Order: sequence, then structure tokens, then C-alpha cells
Amino acid sequence: MAEHSAHTDTARAARPPLRIALAGVGTVGAGVIRLVETNAGLIARRAGRPIVVSAVCARDRHKDRGVDLSAYAWEDDMTALAARDDVDVVVELVGGADGPALMLARNAIAHGKALVTANKAMIAHHGLQLAAWAEAAGVPMRFEAAVAGGIPVIKGLREGAAANAIERIYGILNGTCNFILSTMEDTGRDFADVLAEAQAKGFAEADPAFDIEGTDAAHKLSILSAIAFGTRIDFASVDTAGIARILAADIAQADSLGYVIRLIGMAEVDGVEGGLFQRVQPHLVPFDHPLAHVDGATNAIVAEGNFSGRLLFQGAGAGDGPTASAVVADIIDIARGYDAGFEADATFSIPVADLTDMAPAPRGHRLGRAYIRFIVADRPGVLAEITAAMRDAGVSIESLIQKGRAGDDGEVLVAMVTHEGPEAAVTQALRLLEGSESLAAPPLVMQILGH
Amino acid sequence: MAEHSAHTDTARAARPPLRIALAGVGTVGAGVIRLVETNAGLIARRAGRPIVVSAVCARDRHKDRGVDLSAYAWEDDMTALAARDDVDVVVELVGGADGPALMLARNAIAHGKALVTANKAMIAHHGLQLAAWAEAAGVPMRFEAAVAGGIPVIKGLREGAAANAIERIYGILNGTCNFILSTMEDTGRDFADVLAEAQAKGFAEADPAFDIEGTDAAHKLSILSAIAFGTRIDFASVDTAGIARILAADIAQADSLGYVIRLIGMAEVDGVEGGLFQRVQPHLVPFDHPLAHVDGATNAIVAEGNFSGRLLFQGAGAGDGPTASAVVADIIDIARGYDAGFEADATFSIPVADLTDMAPAPRGHRLGRAYIRFIVADRPGVLAEITAAMRDAGVSIESLIQKGRAGDDGEVLVAMVTHEGPEAAVTQALRLLEGSESLAAPPLVMQILGH
Repeated sequence: MAEHSAHTDTARAARPPLRIALAGVGTVGAGVIRLVETNAGLIARRAGRPIVVSAVCARDRHKDRGVDLSAYAWEDDMTALAARDDVDVVVELVGGADGPALMLARNAIAHGKALVTANKAMIAHHGLQLAAWAEAAGVPMRFEAAVAGGIPVIKGLREGAAANAIERIYGILNGTCNFILSTMEDTGRDFADVLAEAQAKGFAEADPAFDIEGTDAAHKLSILSAIAFGTRIDFASVDTAGIARILAADIAQADSLGYVIRLIGMAEVDGVEGGLFQRVQPHLVPFDHPLAHVDGATNAIVAEGNFSGRLLFQGAGAGDGPTASAVVADIIDIARGYDAGFEADATFSIPVADLTDMAPAPRGHRLGRAYIRFIVADRPGVLAEITAAMRDAGVSIESLIQKGRAGDDGEVLVAMVTHEGPEAAVTQALRLLEGSESLAAPPLVMQILGH
Repeated sequence: MAEHSAHTDTARAARPPLRIALAGVGTVGAGVIRLVETNAGLIARRAGRPIVVSAVCARDRHKDRGVDLSAYAWEDDMTALAARDDVDVVVELVGGADGPALMLARNAIAHGKALVTANKAMIAHHGLQLAAWAEAAGVPMRFEAAVAGGIPVIKGLREGAAANAIERIYGILNGTCNFILSTMEDTGRDFADVLAEAQAKGFAEADPAFDIEGTDAAHKLSILSAIAFGTRIDFASVDTAGIARILAADIAQADSLGYVIRLIGMAEVDGVEGGLFQRVQPHLVPFDHPLAHVDGATNAIVAEGNFSGRLLFQGAGAGDGPTASAVVADIIDIARGYDAGFEADATFSIPVADLTDMAPAPRGHRLGRAYIRFIVADRPGVLAEITAAMRDAGVSIESLIQKGRAGDDGEVLVAMVTHEGPEAAVTQALRLLEGSESLAAPPLVMQILGH
């Protein structure tokens, strides 16, 4: 063993600090700097070498960020940042799918730097192209922080569950929506009211559309799909619906039936035709399902492997600390040398050139139970009209509840749960009701999450 | 980028299959073979090269294991297995802390083979020595399957949470105990009765002592502690109590107070003196804690990092499929080249020579709330005696319930919950009651898990 030992010692002694450059010093960027400074000693022990910040770049040099940047070189120009000789890893925290973030990422790779990013929109839209460049250049590109904040779910899928054919992944991928839904649940208040509070508290953006329309969760889901199923990212095919139409009455109704409402992102291989089904939509989640107990801004992801069975990863889905934790975990991986050999070459668990191109699966022949809520005029014959449409479309009703008045205009709420059946049948039933004068608003359909 | 690309392509083309040898072909071993065969294609894509079984070794060549071993070389002698030229990784699934498993592990490392093991007892007792040898030899040693079956929690701590100072880890680490406790909870039946059923169903060993006395969970906890806190494995210092004394009445009592009972392994740095506190003990877990919903043979581990916040990893804690999933994940890591550089050198997240030697922390000044259950003679003055002892030791009682008869001998059950206070005070109170003729059995103390 003598020569082995000598070799190892030499390698260890020769390991220089890993030098990072930070582009974007907002909440998360400041968190990364605080983390790297606070935990410097243990990071060096775990990474096998110190991790040091060489340079930073942000819009306003003089803004108070709660961290002292004076020890780090300042670049006004991101292009110059990526070109610096004293930088091994470029950390992109600028945000936005395109524009400066994408330019920086491309520049970093072109200069042979490793790329670490928290930018889910950029990865969802341009991750394949970036990975192709990174793999061709032999540099690692990592993005743990882009999905589910501090939860190491990308590592969990890419490495922890690597031995498994993944049959399904699903989970709570947007903390803002989960905060709003669980607050509505706890307080009985309405969506708009809770959203305003979340914005005031900083849990929701001033423009909350990306979150509440499900786009943010869809970005994350499409990234997880690529890793889990070995297929090219297909964000455009995620069937996406948001939470803005959910009423306090829906939550109360779901509760009385034994469910909570959660925005669930789900991807699975279509059992019939083999395509990939991806959906982000509010679901009814049974009380005894692990995801029913995920409250506030917490995220949780379930991966079902053909040998592992069900794996659950849960934690803080956002925030400067958790996101910084994921960013620095990626940097430590690079410092440890995971970029050696095959690793730099397998950004989405396998090399990007080897990803398949699964067709989007139609949702029509999916089987499931659904919650359907109508707001209807309070007059005779309305229930008969709705139930006739269900019958004609072949939808079997498990339970139906008609509840008081929904508003001041003489409207009432009718909620039903269907027996298991094809989603296409529900769609067909609603088509039959389209334009009906009995309906005061378009019906809301939510799938019921199975076990 | 041209030369980078050429280099990468060459490296990929040159990668030969990774050849493994399996020692021990019981349930898990057969699961590993089934997995490697079933998922061969996707494993090769993810690992960057095929993973093939070269040779196997087990006690009885002719036993029916449900898998065909005829394609693999058979060795009767484990020493010969470890010495084979056509083997890169030795997978130890023999079991037992010492004896043949340890001999094999040592031989494998001495022959420059990577070692993958599911053997928690061996790692808890000899992991430091084995890691020192492996690191000196420059070969990776991995043991994801030794803790919590298919859940990638070692990877989660070692890599996913690597940027964090871990403040506390705790969780449900033994599926047999959790199956028994959750079945007692669901059915109201007694411990011995449920244990017998678990044994009949194969969920508990014929000799269940390792599981029900907490030893198995303590092995796993001591391994997690080393990784989380960067300290030498100290299995001997785990303060361990099992579940055999828990009565159906305790579970009913806990339920009425808003808790379930779970065997919890917990490790944290002592806030006062800086030592390491490690305990495996049944705890009362509040209904709204994530661990309260972990039922059956499921395992779940919480890690609290100073930046990540609370991370939860949950899944199947045992079984051939999940355990094989973890074993093969380790093999894929090795195939991918994670053994390069620093990695082979950081078995417990940091090199074994750099692990600190934290002193065991005394439990005396820990603050907490406790559930204390007495079985007492049904006669006047008993409650006064118990409450006086509590008062004299400075234990403040939050609630006290005296319930009917515990047995046929005129004994009654008294259960109390204390206000937060030092554990030492409870110990002192029970010392004052030692030898009292009022007590029909030694009192049972369980800590209440905080949030």
C-alpha cells in the first residue's frame, strides 16, 4: 500500500483553494457569501481545500447587502468576471431565463470555468444547450439550487436513486403557493387576501404571476423530469394550472371530504403509449398522504423507483440560507473533484447527447378521480343539467354537495367527486356544459392524488 | 474547446465495465443481482459504463435464491473472491460486525478493491479502521445501504448538506420498531402480540433483540453522527433504550395527549460543554411533527443545518429492493469516477485522520419535557408519594392522569407529562422513588420530541 498512500498524500497536499466568482449579490448571493465566510473551516475540511470568493459583480456597488464585499474584487462587467484568471467557478445568481444570465453562463463555459446556478428558468429553457457546451468543454455545470431550494433532490435523483428506473416523481415545488394554500386552510380566508399578506411579508413577489400560475413549479418539474427519465427538458409540454381560482369554499369542501389542496407538480411515463406526462395543477391530497402535512413555504418531492420504492425529500424550498446551502453544496462537489472523469459529462445524470426525446403524453386516457366545482344560478333544473352532462359523458359521480350561497348574486356552489375514470370523460362533460346559462363561472377541476 | 472535447470523448470511449464481486447472496444479495440485471441498460447510461457481476460467494451454492447465478464465477472462499483479478469492487453482504465480513472487507482493501457494504454493525464497530486502510490504499469505501435502507441519507449528509454545520440529526432508524409501534397504535394490541406477528410475517428477526433493544438504530446513529459532526464513530456512547416496555396503555395515553410514540435516534452537539450527545430512545412525537406520520417499516431522518434549515429524508428502511438500490447507487458513484481525487479520501465526509474526537455529552443538563409512566399499587397515598418525589427533585408536573387497572393484580397506571426542565431532575425524582413499595414496576420515562 505504500505507493498508494504516497500518491494520495501528494494529491491532497497539492490541492489549491477553489476560487469562485459571484454574479448577482441579492438575497441569495449575500447568503452565499455569508455561508462561505461563516462555515469556511468546515467547508475546507469537507471539500479538501478552501473555497474562496475571488470576485463579485452586481448592479449597484454601494447597496447595503448586510455583507462586507470589500475583500473581493469588484467587476462591473459580467463578461470580465467570467474571463478572470483567478476564477475556477462562476456562480450565476442574476436570474432571468435569457439576457445577462444566459450570456454569463455561456461566457463562463467558454472560458473553461465551472458553472453553478440557481436559475430554474434559464435551465428549463436553455439547460440542454448549456449542458452541451459544458460537456464539450469538459467543465461541470451544476444547478441543485434551481429546484426546491435547500433540498438536495437533484443529487438524490441523479446519484442517490441512480440505480432505479423512476416510475413517477411528484411533489410540492413552489413555496409561495404552498404558503398561500396552507394559510387559506388555517384561516379560512380567501386567495386574494392571503396573497396580499404574503406579498407584504415578502413570501410572494410584487408580480406573483410566475408563482401562482404554476410557471415556476413547471420550470422545476421539467428539470427533474430530464434527470429522472433521461429525457430532454420539455418545459413547453408541462400541462400547467395555477391556484388563483381556488376559493376558501373549495378548501372547506376538500377538508370535509378528507383532503387538503396543494399545488402538485407530477411527471410520469405514460403506461399506455410510453410518452412523458408532465403536469402542474392543484390537487386534492388525502390527509394521510405525506404531502398533506407539508405546510408553509416547505417543498417536498416524492420519487418512486422500481427498486427503492417511494423516496421523499423535504425541506425549505426557498430563502437565502437554504438556497445558499444548495449553491455551496454544488461548489463543494466541484472542489472535491466530482468534476473529474465522467461527471462533468453527465449534467442531467447522463450526457446531454444521450438524453432521449420522449413525446408528451396526452392526458386524455389517464385514469383518476377528480373534484369538480361549479358556481351555478340558484334555480330549479341546474343540478339535473349538470348531472345529465356527467351521465352523457360517462362520468360516474361518487359524491355531490350543494352548499349555500357563494356570493350575493343568488349563486350557489356545487362540488362533486367522481369515481375513477378517464380524465377525457370529465373534459367531455364540461364541454357539454359550455355556454350553459346555469353556470355563473367556468367550473374548476382538480385531480385527487392517489397513494 | 476542441481539445477539451477530444479529451472527453477519449475518456468516455476508454471506460471499461466496472466488475463487482458479491459476498453473501441472501435477500439483499439476490436483490442486488436482480437490480443489476433488470436495470442494466439505464445503469450503464448513468454510470458511463456497464456494471457487471464477475463472481459471487455464499455459503450454499445450491440454495434457491430466485435468481440464476450460473453466469457468474463461484468462489467458495471469500479470500479468493477479494483477490480475483477480474474484480474492481467487492460488495460485502455477509453481515456481522466481525468475523468473515471484517476479514473480507480488509482483504478487499488490501487487494486494492473498492469496498461497498450494507453492514451497519461492522461500520459502527470497525468503520474507522477500515476507512483508514481504504484511504491509505486510495480505494473508495461506501456504505449508503448501512443506514436507512434505500434512503440516500449518507449522501444527503456527506454531499447534499456539506455546506452546513449540522446542529442536530434525528429520526426513525429502525423499521422493525416502527412497524411494531405503529401497529400497536393502529390496533391497540400489546407489544408481545405484535412482535410475534411481525416475526411471523418476516418483519422481525427470530432473535429480535438487536432491533427492539435499539442496538441496530444506535449503530446507524453513530455512523450518521460521524458524518454530520466530523467526529470519530462512538457507538459505545449512544444512550440506548428499546421499545419492549411500552404498553398499549402508553400508546393510548400518548394519543389522548396529542402524541404518537416512535423510537427516535438523535445526535446533537451539547450547547453547554460542546460534547456530542447521542441517544436512541422511544419518544413522544407531536401529531403535527413530520415524524408522527411515518408508519410501518418506513424510516425518516431529519438533519438541521445552520443554513439549510430542516431537511427530511424518508423512505423504505429495509427490504431487498431498497437496500439493493442503495448498494448499487454506491457502485454507480464508483463507476462514475467519484473515487477520483479527494473522494476516496473522505469516507466520512472528511478523511478519517481529520475526524475529531468529541467527548460524549452528559444528558443531565439537557432540558426537555418528559412522559413518565408508573404502575402502582391501588391504595391511598401513592399519588402523594410520587408527587412529593417530583416536588423534592424540582420536577414540575404539567399534567397527570391516573387510569383504571393495568393488570389483574389491583395495579393502576399513572402517567404524567412534565414541564420543560433538566432531565437530571427527573432522574433524581425516580431515584427518590427507588425501592418504594408503591411501585409495581420500574417507571418508564420517554422524552417528548420538540419541534
